[in-house]
Amino acid sequence: MYGTFFLFMRQDKILNIPAIRRMPTYLHKLLKMQAEGKVNVSSTELAEYMNIELIVVRKDISLTGISGQRRVGYDVNELISYIKKYLGWEKPITAALVGAGSLGTALLGYNDFEHYGFWIEYVFDTSPEKVGQNIYGKTVRHTDTMAEAFAGNPPEIAVICVSNSAAQQIADQLVSLGVKYIWNFANVSLQVPPGVVVQREVIAGGLAMLAVKRKQDRNEKNHLS
Amino acid sequence: MYGTFFLFMRQDKILNIPAIRRMPTYLHKLLKMQAEGKVNVSSTELAEYMNIELIVVRKDISLTGISGQRRVGYDVNELISYIKKYLGWEKPITAALVGAGSLGTALLGYNDFEHYGFWIEYVFDTSPEKVGQNIYGKTVRHTDTMAEAFAGNPPEIAVICVSNSAAQQIADQLVSLGVKYIWNFANVSLQVPPGVVVQREVIAGGLAMLAVKRKQDRNEKNHLS
Repeated sequence: MYGTFFLFMRQDKILNIPAIRRMPTYLHKLLKMQAEGKVNVSSTELAEYMNIELIVVRKDISLTGISGQRRVGYDVNELISYIKKYLGWEKPITAALVGAGSLGTALLGYNDFEHYGFWIEYVFDTSPEKVGQNIYGKTVRHTDTMAEAFAGNPPEIAVICVSNSAAQQIADQLVSLGVKYIWNFANVSLQVPPGVVVQREVIAGGLAMLAVKRKQDRNEKNHLS
Repeated sequence: MYGTFFLFMRQDKILNIPAIRRMPTYLHKLLKMQAEGKVNVSSTELAEYMNIELIVVRKDISLTGISGQRRVGYDVNELISYIKKYLGWEKPITAALVGAGSLGTALLGYNDFEHYGFWIEYVFDTSPEKVGQNIYGKTVRHTDTMAEAFAGNPPEIAVICVSNSAAQQIADQLVSLGVKYIWNFANVSLQVPPGVVVQREVIAGGLAMLAVKRKQDRNEKNHLS
C-alpha cells in the first residue's frame, strides 16, 4: 500500500526541465551580485539577465519555495540558499571525472562548479601522455586504479568524458565500485542497473534550440514578405 | 494589422524546449540505424534508447508532423527527414568557432555536427600558440582576421568559446560582421541588438538535472524509511 502511494507521488512530481536547467544560470548571476555586495534583486533584473519573460522567471523562482517582497524583490543571499536547497546543493558533492581529453579538460576548468559545491576530486584517463599530468590542480590517474583511489568510498557523481566506444565499459566499472549518479557526455545510451541514474548530456541540444529559433525567424520573414 | 496578427502567432508558438533538445539524440540514433540498414523503428525502441516514457517519445515525434503506422512504426529515412525539417537542418549551415581552447577543441571533434549539416568552416583564436595550428582539419586563424576571412559573406552561426571576459567583445565583432545567430558557451549574458539571437549554453544545466534527481531519490528513501 505504501509502495503504491509513493509511486503515485513520484508520478506527480514531473520535473520542470527547462527551469531546472536555468537554475545554475540564476545562481551564477546571484553569486556575482553577492560578491559585489548587492542585497536585493528584482525579478525584472533577473529576466533581463536571463533574456526570458518576467513571468517565466517568477515561475522558476517560485519552484524554490522562496517568497519575494513587493518592490524590494528577493534577498540575494536568501535566494542563493533556496536555489541551492532546491537543487540539493547545500552540501559539497564529490565527483570523479573519467576522460581527460579536451572536453574533460574544459570541465575541469569550469570555475563555477566549486561555487555549486561540486568537487571533482578524481581525474582518470588511460593515455600514458595524460596519466601523471596535472590539469587545473588535479593529478590524472590511470583508469585501472579507480578502485584503489576510491578505497571503498566512491564519489557521489561520475562524469564520463571518454570516447563513445569506451563509455559503457567505464560506466560498468564505476557502477561496480558503487557510483550511483553518472553525468554522461559520451554520445551513447548507457545501460545501467536499476537505482543508478544517468544524465546524458547532448551538446547538440543547444544547437537544436538555436536552429529552431532560426527557422521561426525565417518563417516569419516569409509570411511578412 | 498584419503585424499584430503575426505577433499573436509568435506568442502562440511556445517552444517545447526539452523536446527540441532531445531531437539531436533521436537523430543520432536514427542515423546509426540508417547506417546499419534498418528500415523501421518503433517508438518503444526509441523510448528505451532515450530512457524516457513512451508517451513522451510519441509527443516529441508528433511535433515533427510525421505519421507512424501501427505495428510497423516509423520509416527510419522518413523520420530523419522530418526531424531535420523540423529543426531547419535540411540544408548545410555554416559556422565560425571563436576560441580554440579545450572546449572549442572538443566541439571541433564532435563527429555528429557534420551529420546534422552543421559545418564549422572557420576557427579563430588570439593565442600565438594556437594561430596557424590545425585542429581536426581546420586551420586556426587570428581573431583579427575575421572580416577578411568572411569577405562580406559571414557564416550563419558563430560559436563563442572564449573566456567570459572576452565574450562580449567577440560577440560585438561578430554582429558587426553580420552574424545573426550566436551559440554562446561563455558564462555571460551577451548584449546584442534586436534581430540577433543568442543561445546561451550552460554546461552546469545538466548537472542541475542530475542533482534534482539525486535529491528526489533521497527524499523518497527518507519517506520510505
